[in-house]
Amino acid sequence: MPRFALKVEYHGAPFVGWQRQKEHVSVQGTIESALAKLEPGPHTIAAAGRTDAGVHGLGQVAHCDMTRDWDPFRLSEALNYHLKPNPIAIVACSRVDDDWHARFSALERQYLFRILTRRAPATHDKGQVWQVSNPLNVQEMQRAADMLLGKHDFTTFRSTICQALSPIKTLDELRVEQVDGFAGTEVHFHVRARSFLHNQVRSFVGTLERVGAGSWTPEDVRDALGAKERAACGPVCPPQGLYLAGVVYSQDPFA
Amino acid sequence: MPRFALKVEYHGAPFVGWQRQKEHVSVQGTIESALAKLEPGPHTIAAAGRTDAGVHGLGQVAHCDMTRDWDPFRLSEALNYHLKPNPIAIVACSRVDDDWHARFSALERQYLFRILTRRAPATHDKGQVWQVSNPLNVQEMQRAADMLLGKHDFTTFRSTICQALSPIKTLDELRVEQVDGFAGTEVHFHVRARSFLHNQVRSFVGTLERVGAGSWTPEDVRDALGAKERAACGPVCPPQGLYLAGVVYSQDPFA
Repeated sequence: MPRFALKVEYHGAPFVGWQRQKEHVSVQGTIESALAKLEPGPHTIAAAGRTDAGVHGLGQVAHCDMTRDWDPFRLSEALNYHLKPNPIAIVACSRVDDDWHARFSALERQYLFRILTRRAPATHDKGQVWQVSNPLNVQEMQRAADMLLGKHDFTTFRSTICQALSPIKTLDELRVEQVDGFAGTEVHFHVRARSFLHNQVRSFVGTLERVGAGSWTPEDVRDALGAKERAACGPVCPPQGLYLAGVVYSQDPFA
Repeated sequence: MPRFALKVEYHGAPFVGWQRQKEHVSVQGTIESALAKLEPGPHTIAAAGRTDAGVHGLGQVAHCDMTRDWDPFRLSEALNYHLKPNPIAIVACSRVDDDWHARFSALERQYLFRILTRRAPATHDKGQVWQVSNPLNVQEMQRAADMLLGKHDFTTFRSTICQALSPIKTLDELRVEQVDGFAGTEVHFHVRARSFLHNQVRSFVGTLERVGAGSWTPEDVRDALGAKERAACGPVCPPQGLYLAGVVYSQDPFA
């Protein structure tokens, strides 16, 4: 059966998350239903990152196996037709080898987290940013972020329901950037690693926000990491500012 | 009665437009209802631009008259509280002179129009961009836009229901810019004038899009302007890419 890689964009708000759940609307389930309109199912697709409820996809990557040898562009057009009016779009599609796997072949996941710092409620970006009313010190947040880089036991920044075999991960990038957004000043966090623990990015951002607000020091973050216990983490931030921005493979399947 | 200037941001989708209408939800009516929660009404507010249904506000300016001499920051906070959950936010508020008028004191209106050029349906920006599936030639659009600059009889680019006394207006800027957007390539139109005719920006953008797509030449646009008749206009584009971005006064009331 020919295998296809799909680059998937979605708004997280209406979904219980990526993963299919009985009686709940998931991104995976919605795409599988659209596939069933093209070829009789059941279809089971795999994705690089299983995003939580409310978390967005910008460059999520999944794969599906089809019976017909579809032209990739036509497959993406047909899927987009059947995905309407759900806020899910197939933005790229290509034929890949039968042993290529969206999850297991992935070498790196890239996340973006957006904070909007202003008092007035967000209008256009509601549900797409975490809004914080206090100003944030980006330099201090970056200093704290630098202490998290590299290979560590990230137990502190891991949800208690995380199913990863080991809490040891290597964080390759955690860059904090101030951006002039459409509706005011935003702080963006660019995060890269081969793989992540459950809630790791939201645990990072929630903790770093406390540094930006001045209630934690960068050294407090270093100590929290060293404590290797969940209770040492700062508040976990809400999901709606988080985007799975991209997935890296040894060769870009969409190039 | 103390007069206050309000800088107003809103998402146009749920509203019939700025202007109050009986039995329909308008931006003006929604803000007036919020004011009535603070001081008994009726309240009548005036705005610099009466945006149509679906058109957004980023830097709309209005004024209101109050009985109490409110602290401007507290007034904006109280209004934002009562405006929830509507996608309207008061992003700035200040005390102005009693003869200052949001509409009549305005020296310039600034509009932004966003086109998203891609085939896959928009997810996060749905309702906030006009989506066009063909690529657009920005250089050709700019060449055509330049022909519209300055003082002209803009009858061609004026809705038949426009109530302005004269079709003669002076267009100060019509800049076409390609932008790397969140979800793909966008084309932004930056438009400035003292005042506009009804549907003027949407008539410009709809016509210029035809130039970008290659079906009109810049010279066709010059001829359409010269024809001074509505039938010579290209297709009027939809409202959801249009933003009232800012209003200029002799002195910035929010400085």
